[in-house]
Amino acid sequence: MAKDIIHDAVKNALLKDNWTVTHAPYIIRVKGVQMYADLGAEKVIAAEKDGQKIVVEIKSFMGDSAISEFHTAVGQYLNYQQALEEQDPIRQLYLAISDDVYDSFFTIPFVQEAVVRHKIKLIICNIQQEVIIKWKI
Amino acid sequence: MAKDIIHDAVKNALLKDNWTVTHAPYIIRVKGVQMYADLGAEKVIAAEKDGQKIVVEIKSFMGDSAISEFHTAVGQYLNYQQALEEQDPIRQLYLAISDDVYDSFFTIPFVQEAVVRHKIKLIICNIQQEVIIKWKI
Repeated sequence: MAKDIIHDAVKNALLKDNWTVTHAPYIIRVKGVQMYADLGAEKVIAAEKDGQKIVVEIKSFMGDSAISEFHTAVGQYLNYQQALEEQDPIRQLYLAISDDVYDSFFTIPFVQEAVVRHKIKLIICNIQQEVIIKWKI
Repeated sequence: MAKDIIHDAVKNALLKDNWTVTHAPYIIRVKGVQMYADLGAEKVIAAEKDGQKIVVEIKSFMGDSAISEFHTAVGQYLNYQQALEEQDPIRQLYLAISDDVYDSFFTIPFVQEAVVRHKIKLIICNIQQEVIIKWKI
């Protein structure tokens, strides 16, 4: 599964769920930090529905090392959370992953504990059907 | 400055400061997670001095994107912290960086706030002289 496939699948799943995708990518600007050089930023989108505003960090976990990708995902999530609190505090931040990755990696107790500890909200998508399976807060 | 230069410089700076380097790399094992596939793990060392035990995550911030490397550094630090609390809670975790990177990047208010928020302890080294400039807790 290519990285772009999950990106498009999550976007389409949100559209199917009646969200309006307002920014793709959604660039988070922080004073003094060149966020345009943020290599993960291209996989971040913003969406709105019924006055709710969300930012979605999309991660495939399809690289050679799921744990390395998890380090980056956690750090990126927490840094974006910090930036959003300053700039756009009503926007809720989510990490979007596939149901396959959720079942195989996010069920590991260490990973589950990290998700709870850092209050990481998840959107779990089925990539083939391009549908949201679960919002996990 | 190559990534390996900072690794060796930090190790030599610790030796000069009378630390014994006990593990290089120091592999953190977590049940269910293949940490040997942790791409950042090669830059983690463990050291001891007078009964004190530390783990040092070394980051060069010399890639194309300091902010992307910072995401990874924060996530790796927090995941290692979580793993150490379970396995080896007396070991203190540090992030080692060069004084140049400290002065240019870690003085940015957003970055400073993240370091405080996540209680990231720093070892700041001069790479050319291979000496520890400051322990910042």
